[in-house]
Amino acid sequence: MYNQLILPDLQMMLRENDAQGLREFCEALYPVVSAEILEGLEAKQIWQVLSNCDVERQGEIFGFISLPRQVELIDAIDRKRLAKLIEEMAPDDRVDLLSRLEKDRIENLLPLVAQAERSDIRKLLSYPEDSAGSIMTTEYASLPADITVGEALLEHLRKQAPDSETIYYVYIIDEGRRLQGFVSLRELVLAPRETAVSEIMTKDVISVRVEDDQEIVAQELAKFDFLAIPVVDRQNQLVGIVTHDDAMDVVQQEATEDAHLMGAVYPLEDSYLQTPLKTLFWKRGIWLMLLAGVALVNADVLKHYPTAAKNYVWMILFLPLVLASGGNAGSQSATLIIRAMALRNMSRKENIGMIVKEIQVGLFLGLCLAGIGFVAAVYWFHRTSLESSVVASTVLIVVILGTLYGALLPLTLRKFGMDPAIMSNPLIASIMDISGVVIYFNVALWILGVLVEDS
Amino acid sequence: MYNQLILPDLQMMLRENDAQGLREFCEALYPVVSAEILEGLEAKQIWQVLSNCDVERQGEIFGFISLPRQVELIDAIDRKRLAKLIEEMAPDDRVDLLSRLEKDRIENLLPLVAQAERSDIRKLLSYPEDSAGSIMTTEYASLPADITVGEALLEHLRKQAPDSETIYYVYIIDEGRRLQGFVSLRELVLAPRETAVSEIMTKDVISVRVEDDQEIVAQELAKFDFLAIPVVDRQNQLVGIVTHDDAMDVVQQEATEDAHLMGAVYPLEDSYLQTPLKTLFWKRGIWLMLLAGVALVNADVLKHYPTAAKNYVWMILFLPLVLASGGNAGSQSATLIIRAMALRNMSRKENIGMIVKEIQVGLFLGLCLAGIGFVAAVYWFHRTSLESSVVASTVLIVVILGTLYGALLPLTLRKFGMDPAIMSNPLIASIMDISGVVIYFNVALWILGVLVEDS
Repeated sequence: MYNQLILPDLQMMLRENDAQGLREFCEALYPVVSAEILEGLEAKQIWQVLSNCDVERQGEIFGFISLPRQVELIDAIDRKRLAKLIEEMAPDDRVDLLSRLEKDRIENLLPLVAQAERSDIRKLLSYPEDSAGSIMTTEYASLPADITVGEALLEHLRKQAPDSETIYYVYIIDEGRRLQGFVSLRELVLAPRETAVSEIMTKDVISVRVEDDQEIVAQELAKFDFLAIPVVDRQNQLVGIVTHDDAMDVVQQEATEDAHLMGAVYPLEDSYLQTPLKTLFWKRGIWLMLLAGVALVNADVLKHYPTAAKNYVWMILFLPLVLASGGNAGSQSATLIIRAMALRNMSRKENIGMIVKEIQVGLFLGLCLAGIGFVAAVYWFHRTSLESSVVASTVLIVVILGTLYGALLPLTLRKFGMDPAIMSNPLIASIMDISGVVIYFNVALWILGVLVEDS
Repeated sequence: MYNQLILPDLQMMLRENDAQGLREFCEALYPVVSAEILEGLEAKQIWQVLSNCDVERQGEIFGFISLPRQVELIDAIDRKRLAKLIEEMAPDDRVDLLSRLEKDRIENLLPLVAQAERSDIRKLLSYPEDSAGSIMTTEYASLPADITVGEALLEHLRKQAPDSETIYYVYIIDEGRRLQGFVSLRELVLAPRETAVSEIMTKDVISVRVEDDQEIVAQELAKFDFLAIPVVDRQNQLVGIVTHDDAMDVVQQEATEDAHLMGAVYPLEDSYLQTPLKTLFWKRGIWLMLLAGVALVNADVLKHYPTAAKNYVWMILFLPLVLASGGNAGSQSATLIIRAMALRNMSRKENIGMIVKEIQVGLFLGLCLAGIGFVAAVYWFHRTSLESSVVASTVLIVVILGTLYGALLPLTLRKFGMDPAIMSNPLIASIMDISGVVIYFNVALWILGVLVEDS
C-alpha cells in the first residue's frame, strides 16, 4: 500500500544521495513501514538507506525485514558492522536471524559482539526450536518487592524503560531472581506513591516454563488476555517474557502450519512468495509421491476384483461416489478435531466426548448419503433395487468408517506426541479410497451373491 | 486443569452455603479461571455462586463464560438482574451476547438498562457482523492535546482508568472527537511533567474504519505490534478501539473458519463440543450432499465411456491414481494460496507471481508423478509401454490442471468478494475427479486409438 507510493521517491533520494531525506525516511515512518518499503530495493541500496540513521534505529527497522531478506542482507556488510547491528536488535529477533546461519558463521561473528549481548544470544540459541525459550525476549522490566510505588516509577522503571520491550507488566523478583509476583503499570500509576510494591502486586502469577511448547504459551496468553507472560526455569527463576505480539505471530504461524499440513504440504518456513521453487517442489512432491503410492496400492487391491469389474461395469460408475463419501466425511472429522485441539488442550473426557459425537454424526450423515445414493442409483442410473442397495450400504459403511478414522487418527497421533495435522485431508481421503474399494466389492459379493463368476 | 481440582470444593461450598468461601472463589481467582470452573455447574448453581460477589465482578466473570452458556444462563434470572449485569459487562462482550438474542427480547430488556449503556449498546449492535465496529470497545482513554503530561497522568487518566479497557494507549482528540494523535502511557510516565501532551504525541496514527472487516483490523494490529488500534468513522471521529486480545480472538476465529471451510464444514460458531449434534449434522451434511452430487455427475460422465470401461478394464486400476493426483495437487495449491491471502492482502503483481509459481511447480510435479505412474504401470502392473503412457500423460495433465484450478479458483472467489476458503480440499478434489475421468478416457482414445470398439 505504502509501498507503491513511496518507493519511487526513495529511489530518487538514493540517486540524488539526499542524506536528509533518507534519514527522515528511516526516522519519521513506523519501522515496520520503512522495512516494508525497503524490501523493494536491492541489498546494497537498503544499506545505503539505513546508513543515514543511527544504528539503534537500523536495528529496529532491520528486525522487521523478512528473515530470508535479512539473511541475504547480512552477506552484503562486513562482520564488524553486522556485530554492531546485532547488538541493537531485539533479543528474540536476532536469535531468529542467527538460528538461520551455519554454526561456524555464528562462531565467527560472536566474538565481535559485546559481552552482555553475546551471552544472552548463546543462552537463547540453546533453547529448542518452538519452545517458550526460543520466542521469549530477555528485555523485561523487574522490581524488588520492598520498594515503594514512587521509587518504582521514578527510579527503577525510568532506568529500565529504554531496554525493556514492555514496562506495562513489571515482574517482582527476589534476590535469587525467583518470580514473586507482578504488577501492571496501570496499578503503579494509580496507586499512592508511598505504597509498597509488595502490597499491590498480584501474587498468583501465571507463568510458563522455558521448555514449554510455543503453542501452549500462546494459548495461555490468549486465555488470560495478557500483554505478556513470564517465562521461568525449573527453579522458578524469571528468564524472560513472551509479549502479545510474539504470541500473535505464534498463533498465525501455527495456523499456517496446520493449514499447510492439512492440504498435504510440508509447512513452509517463509511466506509463499519468498519460498524458492525448489523448496516448494520438495515440500509438495514428497506428499504427492506418498499419496500416489497409496493410490497405487489401491490399484493393486482393485486387481483382486478383475472379474467383478468386468461383470459389473455399472459398479465402476459409483466408484467416485463411494470413494469420495468416505474421504469427505473423514476430512470433515479430522478438520474439526484437529482445529479443536489447536485451540486448547483437551482432557481425556473431552476427547471421548468428541469421539462419541463423531460416531453419532457419522451415523446420521451415512444414512442420509446412503439414501441419496440409493435414490440416484434407482432413478438416475436405472439400477435394480438390489444393485442400488449395494451402493447405499457401501456409502453408509464408508461414511461411518471415514468419520471414525478422521476422529481417531489425529487423536492417536497426538497421543504419540506427533502433530495431528499431518492427517491431511488428501491422506484421509487416500486411506479411505482403499477401504472403500474393498468394502464396495465385498458388499456386492454379499448382496448380489455371485460376484466372482468368470465370464 | 484448575477445573478438576477446584470443582468438588466449590460444590461442597455450595451445599454448605459457605458465603465467605464462595465470595473468595469469585474474587481471589482470575475471572477467566472462575468462569472456566463455573462452566462445570448447572445454571442455577452458577448464579448461586455469583450472588456472593458484587455485580461488577459478576459482569467480569460472566463475560468469560462461553456464549452458548451465557445464553442459557440469562434464562435463569429475571430481567432486572440481567439489566444490571449487562451494564457491568464490557461493551464488546455484552453486544456479543445480545446479538445472539431475538429482537423483541432485546427490546424488552433495553428499557431497564441505564441510559448511557443503552445508547452504547444500540450503536454497537448497529454495526455489521465481523466489522471493526462489531468487535471494538467504546471504553478507551482519551485526552485533549493542550494539557500537560502531569495533568494527563494525575487528573484525566486517573479519572478514566476504571472505565477504560486499556490506558496504555491514550488517544488525543479535538473538540469534535476527531483523532489527532496518540501517546503511550510509557511515554507519559517517562516525560517531564510540564511537557505538553501535543509535544510528545505521535501524529501519524494508524487507524481503521468502523466498517472495515475484522480480518483487516487484526492484520493491521499484528503488523504494527500494537496493543490497540483506534477505530474511526468517516469523519475521522474516534468511535472505539480494538485491543490486542480481541485481535487475537479474531485471528483464531478466522483461522478456525478457514480450516473448517477447507475441510468442507460450514464454519461452527461455537466450540466443537458446544455445538449441538443437529447443527454439526447440517453444517457437514450440506457439503457432503453437494460433494455427493458432484460424484454423481462424475458417474454420469463415466456412463459415456461404457465400452471403454469394458474393453480396458486395466484402466480402472489406475483410476484412483489419476483422480487422486489431480485432486491432491489442486488441494495443495488452494491451501497455499488461501493461507497466503489470509495472512495479508496481496497486490495484483503478487497474485500474478503466485500463479506463475504454481504453473512452474505444477509442471515439475506433474512430470515427476507421471514418471512414477509410468514406471509403476510397466513394472508393477505389467502394462505395455503404450498403455503406461496413457496413465503417465493423464497424470501429467491432471496435475498441471489441478494446480491451475487450485490457484485460480480461490483468487477468482476473492475477486468477487467471496471467501476463497470455500474452495475446500474435497471440493477441489471432486471437481478434479470429473476432469480426471474425461481426460483419462480421451487420452486413451488418442494414444490407443480404438477405445470405443464394441465387443
